[in-house]
Amino acid sequence: MTVTINDVAQAAGVSKGAVSYALNGQPGVSDDTRERILRVARELGWKPNLRAKSLSSAKAFAVGLVVARDPRLLGTDPFFPAFIAGIETTLVEHEYVLVLTVAASADAEELGYRKLAADSRVDGVILTDMRVDDSRIALLTSLKIPAVTLNRPETPSPFPAVCMDDTEGIAAAVEHLVSLGHTKIGHVGGPQSYIHGRSRRLAWQNAMAKAGLGAGSFIEADFTAAGGLAATAELLRSAQRPTAIIYANDLMATAGQSYAQSLGLAVPDDLSITGYDDTELARYLNPPLTTVPADPLLWGRVAAQQLLSLLGGAPAEDVYLPSPKLVVRASTGPVPSMPNK
Amino acid sequence: MTVTINDVAQAAGVSKGAVSYALNGQPGVSDDTRERILRVARELGWKPNLRAKSLSSAKAFAVGLVVARDPRLLGTDPFFPAFIAGIETTLVEHEYVLVLTVAASADAEELGYRKLAADSRVDGVILTDMRVDDSRIALLTSLKIPAVTLNRPETPSPFPAVCMDDTEGIAAAVEHLVSLGHTKIGHVGGPQSYIHGRSRRLAWQNAMAKAGLGAGSFIEADFTAAGGLAATAELLRSAQRPTAIIYANDLMATAGQSYAQSLGLAVPDDLSITGYDDTELARYLNPPLTTVPADPLLWGRVAAQQLLSLLGGAPAEDVYLPSPKLVVRASTGPVPSMPNK
Repeated sequence: MTVTINDVAQAAGVSKGAVSYALNGQPGVSDDTRERILRVARELGWKPNLRAKSLSSAKAFAVGLVVARDPRLLGTDPFFPAFIAGIETTLVEHEYVLVLTVAASADAEELGYRKLAADSRVDGVILTDMRVDDSRIALLTSLKIPAVTLNRPETPSPFPAVCMDDTEGIAAAVEHLVSLGHTKIGHVGGPQSYIHGRSRRLAWQNAMAKAGLGAGSFIEADFTAAGGLAATAELLRSAQRPTAIIYANDLMATAGQSYAQSLGLAVPDDLSITGYDDTELARYLNPPLTTVPADPLLWGRVAAQQLLSLLGGAPAEDVYLPSPKLVVRASTGPVPSMPNK
Repeated sequence: MTVTINDVAQAAGVSKGAVSYALNGQPGVSDDTRERILRVARELGWKPNLRAKSLSSAKAFAVGLVVARDPRLLGTDPFFPAFIAGIETTLVEHEYVLVLTVAASADAEELGYRKLAADSRVDGVILTDMRVDDSRIALLTSLKIPAVTLNRPETPSPFPAVCMDDTEGIAAAVEHLVSLGHTKIGHVGGPQSYIHGRSRRLAWQNAMAKAGLGAGSFIEADFTAAGGLAATAELLRSAQRPTAIIYANDLMATAGQSYAQSLGLAVPDDLSITGYDDTELARYLNPPLTTVPADPLLWGRVAAQQLLSLLGGAPAEDVYLPSPKLVVRASTGPVPSMPNK
C-alpha cells in the first residue's frame, strides 16, 4: 500500500542507504545518483511517511491507553467510550493517534506496556483506574514511558495527574439525604483496590461522621449491574437496613433501584437512591436518578492535553478540574415514616 | 525513550547511513567501523524496533477503527467498548495494536482515513455502522486500505464482510408479541441512513405483513435514551397507539419503559416492550427486558480475525455469524383487554 525506500532502491538499482542519503539530502551519493534516485522516487510516488519521520525523531506521534478490564465487562462501563472520545478531541488537533489495548489480566497488562515500549508504539500513556498500590508507576518509570494519571495515586509518582475530586459529590449526597431526615444511609462501593472506589467510600464515611451518624452499612461491589443488585439485596436483608443507598456508579444504582421496585418498594417513598456518573440514561429512569456527573469527556480531553504538554517538555504539574456537583432528581425523597415496610 | 540510529551515529562519529549498513549487515562500511558501530549500539542499548521493521516491510502492525459519532454520544452506546474489546482479543495474539479515531463529522471521518493512509498508521481498517449509501467503500478503495465491513453494505464492496443477521431476532419479537395477542405493534428504529437501522425496521415491517397485520406505527429515533423517550411519547399520544413497542436498541427501550411507567402505565400489563443488544443492565431492569443479544465481543473478535487473514493474503470471503435469538423476559406479556387505559 506504500512505496518504500526498498522499492525506490530496487527500481533505481542502488542500496537502501544510498536512497536514504539522497532523499534526506545527506552527502554519500554522487550528484548523478542522487538525481536518478529522486526521479525514480517521484515516478513511483514515494512520500516521506510518518514512520520514516518517527524513525529519525524517535517519536511515534501516538498516545497509549491500556485498559485493564475483563473484555466481557468493558461494555458495561459508560466511562471509557466518553473518556476515549475526550482524548480524541485533543489528539486530532495535534495529529496524534490513540493506540488502545485491552488487558484481561495483570500479566497481560504488564506485557501490554512492555510491548508498547519495546515496539516504540507510543510516546506516552494515560493511566486510568488508579490503584491503592499501583505497580504501573514503577513499571512505566523503568520503561521510561512518560505518563499522566487520572487523580494522584498514593504510590509516589513522577507523573503529572489530572485531578477531579469525587469526594465532594458523595459528601453532598450524604448531606442531601440527611437534610431529608435519613440517618441509615448505606453505601454500595466499587472495588476498594481502586483509588476511586476507596475515596468514594471514605467520603461517605466522613460525611456520615460529620453529620453525627454512626457508621452505615457498606458493601463492596464491582461497578456492574449484577454486583449492584447483589449488594442491594444484602443491604435490604440486613438488620441495619438503610432507608437510603449511595452507589459508587449509576449502573449499580439503576440495578439497585429496579431490584427494590421489583420487591414492591417505591423509590423514593420507601428507599432513596443516588448514583455517580450521570450517564445519559440517568435522567430517563423512573424515577430519574439523583447522581454526580463525572464528565469523562472533559477528563479525557484534559488528560491528553496534559500528556502532550509533558511530551513537549512542559514541567510535570498536576491539573485540577472542577469538582462535580450533586444533581438532585426524583430518586431521593424524605425518609419514610415507617421505613421497614 | 528509545535509542535511535541517530544516537548511535553521533556516539560512533559516523553517518546514519553507516549505522544502518552496520546494523543491517549490509556492505558499505569497513570491518573496523562496523565493529565500532556495533559496540556503540550495544553500549547505548540500541534495539531494532518495530517502526524500523515497519519501514522496511511497509507494515504498521496496526488495525484502524474510525468511529463516526458525536463524542458526547459515544458514551451512551454499549456496543463500542465490547466490540473494541473483541477486536483486542484477536489483535493481542498477533502482536497488532488498535489505532482508534473518533470523528465528529463526515469531513473529520474522511480526513481520519486519509491521515491513517498518508501516515501509514494502519495496515487495514474495520468499518462499523454501515450506511445505505456508504462513501467509505470508494474512499478506502482509492486509498488502497484493506477493510472488513460489519455486514455487507448495499454499496458494491470489494471488502469481506462479517455478517450477523439482525432481522431474525426482530421477526421473532413480532411473532412473540403476536402470539400474546398483540396486533398494534409499533417500532422505534435507529437512523434509517444506517443499514442496521433500516434492516430492523424492514424486519419488523415484513413480520407484521406476514402475520396479516397492517402497517404499524414507526418512529425514527437516534439510538439515545432521549430519542427513545421522545419516540415513545409520540407513539403513546398517537391515534394508532400501540400495545407493544419494538425498539432497535436496549437504551431506547429502557428510556421508553421508564417513561411509560412514569405515566402510570404498567409494563407489560398495559404496554409490552422489547429491546436489542441485551446489555448487562437489560436483565436487571424492572421488569427485565425482552431483547436480542447482539454479541459485539464475538463480532469484534471475528472481524479482526477476518482482517488479519485478508492482510495475510487470504481471499476476501464473507463470514456469517449465528443469528442472535430473542431472549424473552418479563417486559412482554398478553395484550391488555382495555389497551387505552
